[in-house]
Amino acid sequence: MTNSVEVLVGIIGAGGFAREVMPVAQDFLAKSFAHVPEESVKVVFVETTPCAALLNGYEIMSEADFCTADVKNKFFNIAIGSSRHRKDIGDRLLAFDCEPISILAGSARIYDQNQIGDGATICDNVIITSNAQIGKFFQANIYSYVAHDCVLGDYVTFAPRVSCNGNVHIGDFAYIGTGAVIKQGANGKPTIIGEGATVGMGAVVTKDVPPYTTVVGNPARLLQKT
Amino acid sequence: MTNSVEVLVGIIGAGGFAREVMPVAQDFLAKSFAHVPEESVKVVFVETTPCAALLNGYEIMSEADFCTADVKNKFFNIAIGSSRHRKDIGDRLLAFDCEPISILAGSARIYDQNQIGDGATICDNVIITSNAQIGKFFQANIYSYVAHDCVLGDYVTFAPRVSCNGNVHIGDFAYIGTGAVIKQGANGKPTIIGEGATVGMGAVVTKDVPPYTTVVGNPARLLQKT
Amino acid sequence: MTNSVEVLVGIIGAGGFAREVMPVAQDFLAKSFAHVPEESVKVVFVETTPCAALLNGYEIMSEADFCTADVKNKFFNIAIGSSRHRKDIGDRLLAFDCEPISILAGSARIYDQNQIGDGATICDNVIITSNAQIGKFFQANIYSYVAHDCVLGDYVTFAPRVSCNGNVHIGDFAYIGTGAVIKQGANGKPTIIGEGATVGMGAVVTKDVPPYTTVVGNPARLLQKT
Ligand SMILES: CC(=O)SCCNC(=O)CCNC(=O)[C@H](O)C(C)(C)COP(=O)(O)OP(=O)(O)OC[C@H]1O[C@@H](n2cnc3c(N)ncnc32)[C@H](O)[C@@H]1OP(=O)(O)O
Ligand SMILES: CC(=O)SCCNC(=O)CCNC(=O)[C@H](O)C(C)(C)COP(=O)(O)OP(=O)(O)OC[C@H]1O[C@@H](n2cnc3c(N)ncnc32)[C@H](O)[C@@H]1OP(=O)(O)O
Ligand SMILES: CC(=O)SCCNC(=O)CCNC(=O)[C@H](O)C(C)(C)COP(=O)(O)OP(=O)(O)OC[C@H]1O[C@@H](n2cnc3c(N)ncnc32)[C@H](O)[C@@H]1OP(=O)(O)O
Ligand SMILES: O=c1ccn([C@@H]2O[C@H](COP(=O)(O)OP(=O)(O)O)[C@@H](O)[C@H]2O)c(=O)[nH]1
Ligand SMILES: O=c1ccn([C@@H]2O[C@H](COP(=O)(O)OP(=O)(O)O)[C@@H](O)[C@H]2O)c(=O)[nH]1
Ligand SMILES: O=c1ccn([C@@H]2O[C@H](COP(=O)(O)OP(=O)(O)O)[C@@H](O)[C@H]2O)c(=O)[nH]1
Repeated sequence: MTNSVEVLVGIIGAGGFAREVMPVAQDFLAKSFAHVPEESVKVVFVETTPCAALLNGYEIMSEADFCTADVKNKFFNIAIGSSRHRKDIGDRLLAFDCEPISILAGSARIYDQNQIGDGATICDNVIITSNAQIGKFFQANIYSYVAHDCVLGDYVTFAPRVSCNGNVHIGDFAYIGTGAVIKQGANGKPTIIGEGATVGMGAVVTKDVPPYTTVVGNPARLLQKT
Repeated sequence: MTNSVEVLVGIIGAGGFAREVMPVAQDFLAKSFAHVPEESVKVVFVETTPCAALLNGYEIMSEADFCTADVKNKFFNIAIGSSRHRKDIGDRLLAFDCEPISILAGSARIYDQNQIGDGATICDNVIITSNAQIGKFFQANIYSYVAHDCVLGDYVTFAPRVSCNGNVHIGDFAYIGTGAVIKQGANGKPTIIGEGATVGMGAVVTKDVPPYTTVVGNPARLLQKT
Repeated sequence: MTNSVEVLVGIIGAGGFAREVMPVAQDFLAKSFAHVPEESVKVVFVETTPCAALLNGYEIMSEADFCTADVKNKFFNIAIGSSRHRKDIGDRLLAFDCEPISILAGSARIYDQNQIGDGATICDNVIITSNAQIGKFFQANIYSYVAHDCVLGDYVTFAPRVSCNGNVHIGDFAYIGTGAVIKQGANGKPTIIGEGATVGMGAVVTKDVPPYTTVVGNPARLLQKT
C-alpha cells in the first residue's frame, strides 16, 4: 500500500456477488469521495484466504492485510450472500479500526423517512420506499424493493427481484429468494417472516412464515424434505 | 394558504401508497413547474378527514379545505390503491375548480404512440411501451409494465411489478396484484381481463379472466372461497 | 434514399417488439453516432414484405431495398421474438454489405468482463452483471437480467423480466418466458437449459431443462400436452 492512499475500501468476498457489487461500488465510492484526489482512494476485494492477486482487474487483499493496513480511513462492505458469513466477518472486522460503509447503486432509490443500518448493500434498480426500518448488513440484490412501513432485522438477505410489500416484518438472518412476493400486512397487523426463515425463489407468501422454516411455491407452503 | 401560492397540488390519500408517491410527485412537479417560483408551488397530502397536520414533513389538508382553497391553479392526483375510492374521490373533486394531473416518476418510460387518460400515477421503473390506450386514473405501481397494443379501461390498478404483455385488454376497475404475469394476446385476439376482475399477486394468467372474478396461482385459476 | 445518408440502420421487423425497440434504438443510435451530422443518420423499420410505408411515424423499407441500398455504413438489429426468424434473417442480411449492430437501452447496465455476441438487443432496465459469455443475436427484453458467470448460446431469447441467476448455461435457440426464474448453478456445476428449450412464463426452474422441451409452473415441470 503506497502512502498516498487515504481511503481504503474493502469489498469483502470475491465470489459471484462480490464481482457484481465491485463495479457498482467503484462508481458509488468515486462519487462519495469526489473531494479526495482519485489516486488516494482505493477499492479492493478482500478474502480471508485469497487464491489470486487480481480479480476482474481489481486487487484482492487478504483479510489480515486489510485489517492491519495503516490507512487513515478504512471502510468495508460485505458482499457475500450468506448472512452467517456476514455476521462473522462483520464481527471480526469491527474489532479493527475499520468501519462498515453502505453501498448505494446509482439507479437505486430511497424515498422518505427510512432508517437503514450500517453496512447495507443496495444494488441497481432497488427501491426502498417510505417509513421502513432496516437493520444492519442488509443485502438488497438487484430489482428488489421494500415498501412502506416494513421492519427488517439484522443480516437480512434479499436475492434479486424480491417484492416486499407494505407492513411486512422480517426477522434477523432471514433469506428471501429471487422473485418472491410477500403479501402486505396492515398497520398493527404485519405479515411476519420469522427469524432465520427462508423464502424460496418464486414463492408467493400469503401468510406468516415461522422462524427457521423454508417455504416455497404459489401459494407458499412449507418445503417438505423427503 | 398564503397568497403567494400559485400552484397547489393535492396528493389525495395519506396511506401507504400516498407516502410512496409524495417524494416522486415532489420531484416531478418541481420539474414540471420549473418556470414558476419555487415558493409559489405547494404540494400537500389531502385526506377527507385528516388525523394530523403533518405527515413525513408534508402538510395534510382536509378535502374540504383543498376544494375551496382560493388558488389560481389547483391539481390533484389520487394516490390510493382502491379503484372505487379513486372513482368516488375523482367525481367529488371534479365538481370543484381543480384538475387531475398525471404524475410520472423520474425513471419511468413511455415510448411511442400511447394514449393515457387523466390523473395517472406512473411510479418509478414503470415502462409503457408502444401503442397502448389507457383510461383515466390509472395506477401503475413500481416496476410494472404495459406492453405494445394493450387497451386498459378506467380506474385500472397495477400493484408493483405487474407484467402486462402485448395485446392484453383490461376492463374498468380491474386490479392486478404484485408480480402477476399476463400472457400476450394477438392482434384481433387479445387476452381479456374483465371489468372489476382481480388477478392475485404472483398469478400467471394464461387465458381470459371473466369480469368480477378473482384468479390466483400458476397457472391462474379461479380463487375458490371456502 | 437521399445521398446525404451516411449511416442507415434497419430495425428488422415491424411487429410488437420492433415497435418497442424503435424508440430505444433511436436514442441509442443518436448517441452512438453523435459525431455524424443528424441528417446523415437514418433509422428505419425493415420488413421482408412491408404492408405500409410508415409505422409510428418511422419509414418502413423492404428487406430487398435495405439490402441493396447504396449507403456507406449499413447496420441492422433484428427486433423479432422468434429465434428461428432471427437466424434466417441474420443469415440473409449477412450475405449483403451490412453489419449487425447491438442496441443498448439507456437504462440498461453491463458490469464487468462480459462477452456479448453481435446483434444483441438489450432493452430498458436490463442488467448483465459480471463474467457472462453470451452468443450472437441475443434478445433481452425489458427488466431481464443475466447474473455472474452465465454462458448463453446463440439466438437466445429472454421475454421481459427473466431472472437468470449465476452459473446458468443456456443453449442456442432457447426461449425463456416472462418472469421466469432460474436457480443458480455452481462453479463447475451449472444449471443447464438445453438447446431449443422453452421455459414458460412464470416458471420457477429448480433443475436442468432438457433440450427441446417445455417446462412451466412453480416448481417447473414438463408441460404435458393433452
Ligand atoms: C445472482 C444470484 O445467483 S443470487 C442467488 C439467488 N438464488 C435464489 O434465489 C435461490 C433460492 N433458493 C431456493 O429457492 C432453494 O431451492 C431452496 C432454499 C428453497 C431449497 O433449496 P434445497 O433444499 O437445496 O432444495 P433442492 O434443490 O434440494 O430441492 C428440493 C425440492 O424442492 C423443490 N424446490 C426447491 N426450490 C424450490 C422453489 N424455490 N420453489 C418450488 N420448489 C422448489 C425442488 O424442485 C425439489 O423438489 P423435487 O425433487 O420434487 O423437484
Ligand atoms: C406496496 C404495496 O403493498 S401494494 C399492495 C400489493 N398487494 C398485492 O399485490 C396483493 C394482492 N392480493 C392478493 O393476492 C389477495 O391475496 C387476493 C385478492 C388474491 C385474495 O385476497 P383474500 O380474499 O383476502 O385472500 P385470503 O388471504 O383470505 O386467502 C384465501 C386463500 O387464498 C390463498 N391466496 C390468497 N392470495 C393468493 C395468491 N395471490 N396466490 C395464491 N393463493 C392465494 C390463501 O393462501 C388462502 O388459501 P389457504 O387458506 O389455503 O392458504
Ligand atoms: C411484450 C411481450 O408480449 S413479449 C411476449 C412474452 N410472452 C411470454 O413470456 C409467454 C411465454 N409463453 C408461454 O408461457 C406459453 O404459454 C407456453 C410456451 C409455455 C405454452 O404455450 P402453448 O403451448 O400455446 O400453451 P397453451 O396456451 O395451449 O396452454 C396449454 C396448457 O398449459 C398451460 N400453460 C400455458 N403456459 C403456461 C405457463 N407459462 N405456466 C403454467 N401453465 C401454462 C395452460 O393453462 C394450458 O393448460 P389448461 O388448459 O389446463 O389451462
Ligand atoms: O469468512 C469468509 C467467508 C467467505 N469468504 C469469501 O466469500 C466468497 C463467497 O462467495 P460465494 O460465491 O460462495 O457466495 P456469493 O458471492 O454468491 O455470496 C468467497 O470468495 C469466499 O472466499 C471469505 O473471504 N471469508
Ligand atoms: O374517500 C376517501 C378514501 C380514503 N381516504 C384516505 O386514503 C388513504 C388510504 O390509505 P390505505 O393505506 O388504506 O391504502 P393505500 O395507501 O394502500 O392505497 C387513507 O389515508 C384514507 O384516509 C380519503 O382520504 N378519502
Ligand atoms: O422473415 C421475416 C419474418 C418476420 N418478419 C416480420 O417480423 C415481424 C414479427 O412480428 P410479430 O408481432 O409476429 O412478433 P414480435 O414483434 O412479437 O417478435 C412482422 O412484422 C413480420 O412481418 C419479417 O419481416 N421477415
